[in-house]
Amino acid sequence: MTVTRRTFLMQLAATSGYTAAAAAMTTLGLGAPTIASATGQTPPLQLAPGSGKGVKVLVLGAGIAGLVSAYELRKAGYQVQLIEARDRVGGRNWTIRNGTRIELNDGTTQVADFEPGHYFNAGPARLPSHHQTILGYCREFGVELEAEVNTSRSAYFLPDAAKGGQPIQLRRAVNDARGHVSELLARAASKGALDQELSADDRARLVEFLKVYGDLTANAEYKGSERSGYKVYPGAAEKVGERNEPLPLEALLDPDLWTALIFDELLIFQPTMLQPVGGMDRIPHAFHERLKDVARLNTEVKAIRNKDKGVDVVVRDRASGKQQTLSADYAIVTFPLPVLAQVETNFAPDVQQAISGVHYDTASKIAWQSRRFWETEAQIYGGISVVKAETALIWYPSGGFHKKTGVVVGCYNIGQAARDFTVQPLSAQFAVSRGVIDRVHPGRGAELKNPVSVAWHKVPYSLGSWVHWVTPAEKEYTRLNQPEGRVHFAGEYLSQIGAWQEGAALSAHHAIAAIARRVAA
Amino acid sequence: MTVTRRTFLMQLAATSGYTAAAAAMTTLGLGAPTIASATGQTPPLQLAPGSGKGVKVLVLGAGIAGLVSAYELRKAGYQVQLIEARDRVGGRNWTIRNGTRIELNDGTTQVADFEPGHYFNAGPARLPSHHQTILGYCREFGVELEAEVNTSRSAYFLPDAAKGGQPIQLRRAVNDARGHVSELLARAASKGALDQELSADDRARLVEFLKVYGDLTANAEYKGSERSGYKVYPGAAEKVGERNEPLPLEALLDPDLWTALIFDELLIFQPTMLQPVGGMDRIPHAFHERLKDVARLNTEVKAIRNKDKGVDVVVRDRASGKQQTLSADYAIVTFPLPVLAQVETNFAPDVQQAISGVHYDTASKIAWQSRRFWETEAQIYGGISVVKAETALIWYPSGGFHKKTGVVVGCYNIGQAARDFTVQPLSAQFAVSRGVIDRVHPGRGAELKNPVSVAWHKVPYSLGSWVHWVTPAEKEYTRLNQPEGRVHFAGEYLSQIGAWQEGAALSAHHAIAAIARRVAA
Repeated sequence: MTVTRRTFLMQLAATSGYTAAAAAMTTLGLGAPTIASATGQTPPLQLAPGSGKGVKVLVLGAGIAGLVSAYELRKAGYQVQLIEARDRVGGRNWTIRNGTRIELNDGTTQVADFEPGHYFNAGPARLPSHHQTILGYCREFGVELEAEVNTSRSAYFLPDAAKGGQPIQLRRAVNDARGHVSELLARAASKGALDQELSADDRARLVEFLKVYGDLTANAEYKGSERSGYKVYPGAAEKVGERNEPLPLEALLDPDLWTALIFDELLIFQPTMLQPVGGMDRIPHAFHERLKDVARLNTEVKAIRNKDKGVDVVVRDRASGKQQTLSADYAIVTFPLPVLAQVETNFAPDVQQAISGVHYDTASKIAWQSRRFWETEAQIYGGISVVKAETALIWYPSGGFHKKTGVVVGCYNIGQAARDFTVQPLSAQFAVSRGVIDRVHPGRGAELKNPVSVAWHKVPYSLGSWVHWVTPAEKEYTRLNQPEGRVHFAGEYLSQIGAWQEGAALSAHHAIAAIARRVAA
Repeated sequence: MTVTRRTFLMQLAATSGYTAAAAAMTTLGLGAPTIASATGQTPPLQLAPGSGKGVKVLVLGAGIAGLVSAYELRKAGYQVQLIEARDRVGGRNWTIRNGTRIELNDGTTQVADFEPGHYFNAGPARLPSHHQTILGYCREFGVELEAEVNTSRSAYFLPDAAKGGQPIQLRRAVNDARGHVSELLARAASKGALDQELSADDRARLVEFLKVYGDLTANAEYKGSERSGYKVYPGAAEKVGERNEPLPLEALLDPDLWTALIFDELLIFQPTMLQPVGGMDRIPHAFHERLKDVARLNTEVKAIRNKDKGVDVVVRDRASGKQQTLSADYAIVTFPLPVLAQVETNFAPDVQQAISGVHYDTASKIAWQSRRFWETEAQIYGGISVVKAETALIWYPSGGFHKKTGVVVGCYNIGQAARDFTVQPLSAQFAVSRGVIDRVHPGRGAELKNPVSVAWHKVPYSLGSWVHWVTPAEKEYTRLNQPEGRVHFAGEYLSQIGAWQEGAALSAHHAIAAIARRVAA
């Protein structure tokens, strides 16, 4: 694997939350997973009703893993308390609307100033259709969903400013790339380069296939394609269209472009993707409605101590400052690791080391309110423009089409790039984002209004975005997926679907099932 | 061009309404089109307000072309009457809901029996994002839009029953095809087959590109990809996923499959696609609200006669049977040609010949109400399964996700296939559709309920779907795009965007502009 390819894959992995460790994970021999569905989905968790009677569980943290844990345990009759430090549930599932305060731990405070109805999903913003656990909760709770438009062929790739290139519409990049690839392969086949691999019949079929696949001429040449769009669109009567010239092959061999060409074929980004109507936090709110009587907000966890047959948790009421020790038979800790690292515990050294030793990644997003010029002037309805710039993308809203204004995401960078970017004052970050959008949509930067930024490593009680597991981190992953005394850990970072709500929900199921087995034993 | 390729393209053309004649059209020298937008869109029609004062125009037919004509002419001060034979506006833009009667001219009557809120767009069902004329009217009228999910990677390709194959999930077909193509090309490059085409540097970059593009191994081999999905999805903790095996190259060289691999890259099917919330007929209804006082429904046109300085139109009230002659300065005729062919006219022989000589295509659709098993069991949220069977596709609803039931389209065939299919009794058509759906979704055919079928050549006042222009038909296209006396023709079939509402709207603009020029002269 060359550096280019590795760098590329890491970039993808970070963006997609793809857990690189997955393929190398050792199984723990806890029994083969049961597969219910023909499509390979994990079956819904089934705890016997009443099976938790008389057992007390403290669930620490009301993000998705905590909400799922508390909800499922209660259904099975457990006595549950759900502890959350913030004044809201959801954790990283955070939807920002008019009036939302964003207090970062660098001392900055922002208050969102959006028109009513607008929102910005600062954390997760899409639900892949194969994430059936979290989607199953949406179904169960009646959380209304709509399509999240992750791909628009009218969106752009913006080359690096240093290379001086103009934005390239994705329909051109995607279809011209396929055209060139098809032409080259057809030519190679005709030269005998595939005579060992394919029979004469198959070679002939391959060439016919490539003509269709790449929209080649009868002579198997790529001369451009309607698929790549028009300079002048066709109209009525005699108004024929004027097609875009094909991009030269050389332009497509720029590695900067490659993410834009394939991101929507990554499993995690393939259509159909979904979103709750009105904001991603409709999901945590739906859980919260069902957990109102057991959820304690504004309550920090200061210490977690395993006892012989139970666990003590010291909590502090943020309003009064009063501390209190809660006792339970088990606890499920769903904090991000940098938050858990600040909690006093009597965990074994290897566990403490795992908690403090894993590097937590970050991500930052910027959102703007604006006239929807991307629709009226560029025919972009949702989807993503990929930009070779510090801000990484422009992400257009998937709903509210044709309304006067909308909220557009003008930055979603990750890892070190996000740390470097968010060292700057907010005003400087906003200036960069505005400038990049102005390069893709000339003259429109000036229309962007009321930006807000969320840098996840600066968000109290989050302090990061996800774990970017790499092979050496496996032992921490494995260790934290086992309980420490009466304390079980859960969170997206302990699943093979890191950084996604699906992973958080499945990890919660895993922790619950482990507790249920102990209770039953 | 081999027969295979031509057949394939005709199939595509028919499905997409792509006007094959476009490239060969001769321009008429009426002046270069003005292009307003950087994205090559036709600018909105601009008639001077009051410019039509004192001029009477009869608009015949209240489909999209007629509605657009009447609406724009009125805005410019013309005295307009809009004549429509049906009891509704919209023409082929027809949304079927509970209680809708479908009376076909083969003597059958169906009454849709759907749950409230469900609908079936029997005609157009999607709006490409580059169709800015019809989308512009949606914006102007506040017709609420949502994403139409035209592609789901969880949907299937169903091979021909005679070949005995199982359904293939599209994420596998699409990504394994790309993997194999990438591997073959990388191999050819390494064998020197591209030494003449590319420099050594570019060959090396090409191979790096192909590794990303096709998800190849470090050795540039295709060993399957996560993009093609999992047999067993990954989960929490130790539960790694088990990927699907790659499909063999041979499976992908079956021409039956190729439409499924590329249809969503056809310009007309690329994301983002849109639909009005609640049904496509929200568009004609929005026009109708603004035209109530000039629209006469239930009024058939029996004769059109050019006079020296005007036009007489004989109409018949369908309720009373009473005939009446209307006079105007101009008429715009928007009927489908098979309908116009039945109207008595004094048009010149070449015009009459054009009207009666053009072959009108057809299309048929079947819709079922059902439990949404495609979501709960197959993770399909919208999109299309392509089936190598008489019914051509299964089209899943793009809205109402997670509701208990939905309406799924179980047939959308065209041309001779549709004619042959709809010769059968409805019960036989429904049995075929049910059987095909049952092959893609085993055991679920039995859950399909309350089917309705619309075969467009059997729909009174439509008598077909669109014109499938081929080169020899050019002269009729050109002739009908010119007025005959005081009569102008308009309709999607007179545009380069045949079969689409955009073409109807632009054709209406073309006819209006021609009248405006005559009035101004």
